[in-house]
Amino acid sequence: MPSKSIRNLPEPIYYISGEWVPRSEAKISIFDSGLLFGDTLTEATRTFRQRPYEEDRHLERFTQSARLARFSIAELPRLKEIIAEMLERNSDLVSNAGEVFIRLEATRGVLAPYRQKENRYPDSTTILWFHDIPFRQLLDKYESGMSVAYPSTRQMPADVLDPRIKHRSRMYRSLADMEAAEIDPGAVALLLDPRGRVAEGVGWNVFIVRGRQVATPSEDVCLQGISRAVVLEMCAELGLEPWVGSIWPYDVASADEVFATASSYCIAPITKVHGKIVGNGKPGKVTQALLQAWSKRVGIDIVGQAREYAARA
Amino acid sequence: MPSKSIRNLPEPIYYISGEWVPRSEAKISIFDSGLLFGDTLTEATRTFRQRPYEEDRHLERFTQSARLARFSIAELPRLKEIIAEMLERNSDLVSNAGEVFIRLEATRGVLAPYRQKENRYPDSTTILWFHDIPFRQLLDKYESGMSVAYPSTRQMPADVLDPRIKHRSRMYRSLADMEAAEIDPGAVALLLDPRGRVAEGVGWNVFIVRGRQVATPSEDVCLQGISRAVVLEMCAELGLEPWVGSIWPYDVASADEVFATASSYCIAPITKVHGKIVGNGKPGKVTQALLQAWSKRVGIDIVGQAREYAARA
Amino acid sequence: MPSKSIRNLPEPIYYISGEWVPRSEAKISIFDSGLLFGDTLTEATRTFRQRPYEEDRHLERFTQSARLARFSIAELPRLKEIIAEMLERNSDLVSNAGEVFIRLEATRGVLAPYRQKENRYPDSTTILWFHDIPFRQLLDKYESGMSVAYPSTRQMPADVLDPRIKHRSRMYRSLADMEAAEIDPGAVALLLDPRGRVAEGVGWNVFIVRGRQVATPSEDVCLQGISRAVVLEMCAELGLEPWVGSIWPYDVASADEVFATASSYCIAPITKVHGKIVGNGKPGKVTQALLQAWSKRVGIDIVGQAREYAARA
Amino acid sequence: MPSKSIRNLPEPIYYISGEWVPRSEAKISIFDSGLLFGDTLTEATRTFRQRPYEEDRHLERFTQSARLARFSIAELPRLKEIIAEMLERNSDLVSNAGEVFIRLEATRGVLAPYRQKENRYPDSTTILWFHDIPFRQLLDKYESGMSVAYPSTRQMPADVLDPRIKHRSRMYRSLADMEAAEIDPGAVALLLDPRGRVAEGVGWNVFIVRGRQVATPSEDVCLQGISRAVVLEMCAELGLEPWVGSIWPYDVASADEVFATASSYCIAPITKVHGKIVGNGKPGKVTQALLQAWSKRVGIDIVGQAREYAARA
Amino acid sequence: MPSKSIRNLPEPIYYISGEWVPRSEAKISIFDSGLLFGDTLTEATRTFRQRPYEEDRHLERFTQSARLARFSIAELPRLKEIIAEMLERNSDLVSNAGEVFIRLEATRGVLAPYRQKENRYPDSTTILWFHDIPFRQLLDKYESGMSVAYPSTRQMPADVLDPRIKHRSRMYRSLADMEAAEIDPGAVALLLDPRGRVAEGVGWNVFIVRGRQVATPSEDVCLQGISRAVVLEMCAELGLEPWVGSIWPYDVASADEVFATASSYCIAPITKVHGKIVGNGKPGKVTQALLQAWSKRVGIDIVGQAREYAARA
Amino acid sequence: MPSKSIRNLPEPIYYISGEWVPRSEAKISIFDSGLLFGDTLTEATRTFRQRPYEEDRHLERFTQSARLARFSIAELPRLKEIIAEMLERNSDLVSNAGEVFIRLEATRGVLAPYRQKENRYPDSTTILWFHDIPFRQLLDKYESGMSVAYPSTRQMPADVLDPRIKHRSRMYRSLADMEAAEIDPGAVALLLDPRGRVAEGVGWNVFIVRGRQVATPSEDVCLQGISRAVVLEMCAELGLEPWVGSIWPYDVASADEVFATASSYCIAPITKVHGKIVGNGKPGKVTQALLQAWSKRVGIDIVGQAREYAARA
Repeated sequence: MPSKSIRNLPEPIYYISGEWVPRSEAKISIFDSGLLFGDTLTEATRTFRQRPYEEDRHLERFTQSARLARFSIAELPRLKEIIAEMLERNSDLVSNAGEVFIRLEATRGVLAPYRQKENRYPDSTTILWFHDIPFRQLLDKYESGMSVAYPSTRQMPADVLDPRIKHRSRMYRSLADMEAAEIDPGAVALLLDPRGRVAEGVGWNVFIVRGRQVATPSEDVCLQGISRAVVLEMCAELGLEPWVGSIWPYDVASADEVFATASSYCIAPITKVHGKIVGNGKPGKVTQALLQAWSKRVGIDIVGQAREYAARA
Repeated sequence: MPSKSIRNLPEPIYYISGEWVPRSEAKISIFDSGLLFGDTLTEATRTFRQRPYEEDRHLERFTQSARLARFSIAELPRLKEIIAEMLERNSDLVSNAGEVFIRLEATRGVLAPYRQKENRYPDSTTILWFHDIPFRQLLDKYESGMSVAYPSTRQMPADVLDPRIKHRSRMYRSLADMEAAEIDPGAVALLLDPRGRVAEGVGWNVFIVRGRQVATPSEDVCLQGISRAVVLEMCAELGLEPWVGSIWPYDVASADEVFATASSYCIAPITKVHGKIVGNGKPGKVTQALLQAWSKRVGIDIVGQAREYAARA
Repeated sequence: MPSKSIRNLPEPIYYISGEWVPRSEAKISIFDSGLLFGDTLTEATRTFRQRPYEEDRHLERFTQSARLARFSIAELPRLKEIIAEMLERNSDLVSNAGEVFIRLEATRGVLAPYRQKENRYPDSTTILWFHDIPFRQLLDKYESGMSVAYPSTRQMPADVLDPRIKHRSRMYRSLADMEAAEIDPGAVALLLDPRGRVAEGVGWNVFIVRGRQVATPSEDVCLQGISRAVVLEMCAELGLEPWVGSIWPYDVASADEVFATASSYCIAPITKVHGKIVGNGKPGKVTQALLQAWSKRVGIDIVGQAREYAARA
Repeated sequence: MPSKSIRNLPEPIYYISGEWVPRSEAKISIFDSGLLFGDTLTEATRTFRQRPYEEDRHLERFTQSARLARFSIAELPRLKEIIAEMLERNSDLVSNAGEVFIRLEATRGVLAPYRQKENRYPDSTTILWFHDIPFRQLLDKYESGMSVAYPSTRQMPADVLDPRIKHRSRMYRSLADMEAAEIDPGAVALLLDPRGRVAEGVGWNVFIVRGRQVATPSEDVCLQGISRAVVLEMCAELGLEPWVGSIWPYDVASADEVFATASSYCIAPITKVHGKIVGNGKPGKVTQALLQAWSKRVGIDIVGQAREYAARA
Repeated sequence: MPSKSIRNLPEPIYYISGEWVPRSEAKISIFDSGLLFGDTLTEATRTFRQRPYEEDRHLERFTQSARLARFSIAELPRLKEIIAEMLERNSDLVSNAGEVFIRLEATRGVLAPYRQKENRYPDSTTILWFHDIPFRQLLDKYESGMSVAYPSTRQMPADVLDPRIKHRSRMYRSLADMEAAEIDPGAVALLLDPRGRVAEGVGWNVFIVRGRQVATPSEDVCLQGISRAVVLEMCAELGLEPWVGSIWPYDVASADEVFATASSYCIAPITKVHGKIVGNGKPGKVTQALLQAWSKRVGIDIVGQAREYAARA
Repeated sequence: MPSKSIRNLPEPIYYISGEWVPRSEAKISIFDSGLLFGDTLTEATRTFRQRPYEEDRHLERFTQSARLARFSIAELPRLKEIIAEMLERNSDLVSNAGEVFIRLEATRGVLAPYRQKENRYPDSTTILWFHDIPFRQLLDKYESGMSVAYPSTRQMPADVLDPRIKHRSRMYRSLADMEAAEIDPGAVALLLDPRGRVAEGVGWNVFIVRGRQVATPSEDVCLQGISRAVVLEMCAELGLEPWVGSIWPYDVASADEVFATASSYCIAPITKVHGKIVGNGKPGKVTQALLQAWSKRVGIDIVGQAREYAARA
């Protein structure tokens, strides 16, 4: 979710279906299928040293989703060019922000009173945009951890729409996050699947740590997060045991540590569930070890950078 | 879905969150929650003699959905005023079209880099628009009936988002309709619920006729359609037995008649399922009796009007 | 749940498996199956004018549960005698309290190091006790209504143990009520069944009012409450339409009125769900009409009595 | 379940919430939540050479359950002290019995007419007791194997109460065992989960052997038994392949060997299902190898000891 | 199931796909889809006064099943002719037997090494046969009642194959009946659906009586039995309240009366479940009243006839 | 399914329950439980160099199924003798065909008007037969790949009948294949389980390839195919990673390669799903590598042989 800090950026230039437009003019038609049918796919990554992180993996996932949702979108190399051009066109802004969060939205396109039978699936509306990274919020996550709550709204099951398609057609998630805030004002939703198993957050994956085991829900109830994949990869390097399977609220409640992964903050400790302390209530050792390993991967002290930039803001 | 025929209308004037704008300028911000979260509610009704049909019931349902989805929208009387003003401002267009289809979209509003804690649920983006009624398509439905197919995509269950909330956050339905067209090129989706029971179509309710019994799925698997309610009411008048409960593909396959209800066409026979004839393949007697009763209700020969206007186009 | 006010009663005399004992000595063996296996059935009713209300129906339900759970208990007439004797033995106390709440617990009995093969199901431990009615709490319910919240703990499904057996083997319900209080400090749990449908509260049934319709969940997800049955009976008398079927959180959220039924308070309005006002936030007209009809049935102004006795306390 | 043989022990001294009482006076209040709400947790282990086996793991599991069920109980070291004191106080009895079975029960405590808001979760009622081990029964299990049957009562699902919490709120299990005995007089229940998968017995975990593979149901349908964990650990030592996942009645019916694990008998062959022979109807080689490995672990010939003590009794 | 008594009939003449053959030569090819794919539909009715009972309803149901299963079978009038001819050809036998049980089997036909693309669904193999009615067994049912047990094998769900199609592809039912006999040697299976609700027996529907209410499972878990329909019709005539919905084992266990319906015996009391008496263990008053009403319908004392013919045999 | 090509074989000699009969006389009684109850088990394997492939594994699986279904069949060695004798008796035919497909059917036997209580489960009807291998069809599969579609008919769940029992009681599968052909005329069914997960085809298992991973559904939703087991074994040899677990339509749609395994064709690429190309639409590299490894195993170029024999035919 674009954060408050976005206003800190002066007018950036965004890409909308072939046009470069200033932020204040970034609009889409009310006839767009993204609005009228919820037909919107999305992708996002942050920069490290102003270079998009894991850009290829993100765009491959996006291309995959688009193919399965039968969207006509630009090829992956073209998308990379557009991202590069966006960073170039906004280079002063980006330099100033230090790092940015890059977002890609694609809809099935404008509905067609003019659409031909031959052209059932019209060209996508493609939007490339970015905003600064809310480092102060990130720092708060790293230091104090996140609070979560289980809403009664459940995760959409895979036989409706596979959770591995990263899309925006998710009003139920807005409601889930609101429910979570009604349970605990500082909390966000940790969704359960229809059988009551832990699924994922709204925009993040969940991990629990039990001893040396680092466990996360299996892919039929959550997004195949790229940050999630990075964590699973790093476990091997650190002598931890990655485990993918069914996770229940019991596991969360009895875990040594719980953490979230997302493209913006990489890894954030979760320290409260329904207002009750998890583990000892502090960011755990394994969580921190993983965050350090990640810092090493990208050659940046991730928490240090957040602290520095948060102070500057 | 706005049909091809919408281009027949010269530039109409629409309402977007307090502004009156010509169709070509009808746009929303890319930061709108309708695009970015699928946070969009919708409502629609057609006119009979240029008066919105069952306007109050539609707006009450909309108001209900908005309350449950925690949207801040205008009060019902204000919405009626706007609709009246839209018809007034476009009176030449409307007169010329004969009848129009009025649509209302509301999103949770533009996302908030500026949003205050006090204002968690910002004012909705509200869009009122209309288009002409595709009478030629309607006539084809009345005369030949619709074709449907069961997609493998299932209806979203009520513990994710209650089907009685009429929203646009439904990419899965776009995919369901595409799957149906892949099964039978002329077919639209008839969704099954996760247990395999018949739920509804994308934008329409389903009914089956067995003898004097007129049956439709219960409300926990489908929209509480207003046209559906009208049919249930008319059953009593016609000495038919309305029945609400679990409907299975077996029931559809062994029904005497099957029909769809929707605000645009009121009642349309369904004559093919997966490419196979249902009943005797022709619009059934009960279906026609119900359509006639409806014509009487509104003082217009519904099929006759479609034939007349289709011819004129 | 015995309330704080129970201490207002001086030492009463209770019945435990053939013995009459003062409250302070009312104990059971730690080898009782009620403790060690959760093998405890229960029943309860309040008095009106110091006579047990619907005593036969309560005892018939108890007898039924005992038979299905394969408990050996005393016959119904004997149970009535014991109740009568208990009221007699404590007549001063009861007179003084005005009305009391009578409770019956039965376990499968003490476990058997001595048990014979011939005697697989030993005689039940049977406990008859009572406490005063917490009129101040009841009055608060009548005037301000109850608050409820949906816990993530779900109702035990009928293929584990049929909800129509009224038993005490329900630690999950204690947890559900605690979860509810964590969501909203003043709330109690309104349990959902495994499919997400509204089931019942911990010790009470739920009703929703929509227009003239008075709806309650079907018996496969909740106790066949006797107060629930009384309400369904009174609907007919009042020209209301009773309806038994699937109720979803959507229905609760969009109801005109919501209320609870239980043997202690008969009918109590529910005015908040997850901290949000239901209906207009006040005890509804239908709720009040039903409560008045009940008062008429028993010849006592139920709310008036609660007000009088609460004041006196 | 305390067996017949318990009467062989002269009056032992038990611990109840701070008091040391002789068995004949071991009682709890009828107002205890353990009786009235089924709010009882439990733990148990046998001694080997009169030392509690895996005492720490048992008490850690108990502490975990207590935290999740929000019980206020004594700290783990204090519980160990009490156990030690109980063995000390009853040293003659224990010496005479050879080995004993130690049991711990904790309830949420006496209900509170006096409970303060500040003290929502009152101090637990804690009971420590023991009984002699029914070696004759054990020997019979080792030599002839157990008989099991599938009751129609199903295992409580994890979204009601996680099976990893070891509690006493399980009347459904008493009924399941009775149903099993009605199917085959000598059988106990092998519970299926709601989807029909094999879950566990009443107080024991199940394993099946296929070639070198030793398989047991996954933890979301059964207790994480400590004996179960011991078996999984020993598999590695013996060159067997442990496997944790979904087990169906088909797997049981087609297994080479089936066995049960529990703290009292460690490992017992299962030789009949619904009255039909499993495998060749005799305790299997892998079962026996595991039991020998266990004997080696504890430095006692487990079956030999049972034979010796059974003869003595 | 053809009973032992069939041997009492001397060689009858049966119809197999156009041929009239003596029983001893009644065979089908091993390439028949009925054997190789389980592609077999079935229908059956008994005679009253040597006339097939409800012949039209049975054949209409059969025709419906055949259409849904995409079988090519003879038209209904032709089937009636064949039945008439069979009774005629075997008139001596039929007269002698008094009444007979007529059976119809149809398969999708012989598999096709020769099958043409144009002929995907080859002509059905159609078998018409009959056997005498096992009156002694029927009498035993009427007088002593049936015993039933719940097998762990569950009823096939409607999303696999709708239970309203009457087919022979049901090995699971053979296993269910065997399981029932293993539970109680005299019992047959009363199948539960996958959620644990009572569904039906193998070849019969189930009813329970509570007061004046006569209840039976809804049609999505059982065959729409014609005898079941007759009972529902007769309820109205007798001032009983028919009820169709979810039935659970609890309802069976707590019913006043339980009975089965089938074409052969019409109505038979069920007096034991899992070896335990239901109701008072004797054929109930409502059951008997319904059986008398049926006798009146067909102008034959059904039980009396069974007694007479059983004595004669 | 016996293919068209079977007519190329002159009259072969088959085995039916102790008799050797020419194909034209291969019949079973209409009273056989295989026809009347769907009580039929089946097994099949092809020859390589005229020797039955993996004969022991196939017969062991068959013996297992028979035991679980409580069939009385001949012992495994006797079945091998009969197969050998059948190949011997038909040696000219077999030589001429090159390779044949051997099939075994067993039913629970003829129903018993004569059946004794002692003989509840009568001797099976056992049928051994064979037909030539449709090499032209196989070649087409190897070169062009198979087309599949998801029917709305779902896989029978394991709590009805475990999919590991290989039986013929599967009319639902005939319907599933017909539905698939209605979706895409060239397609066969790829069944989904009741939760929407990919299960298996009618007579074949499915695999998907993602990079080096070769994944297949877990055994609780499909037959434990012997060809499936062979593929899992070969993965190790080829440095591929076998994976067994939940597969969803998403996985199929996003796989690099998809293939089927069955005893007749061993491995066949799947190149279309619902009419849309999978992967690049051609038999994939991993698929081909596995087929080559299989060729090496059996010492025959499997595709080459199919090409040669198809040309000859």
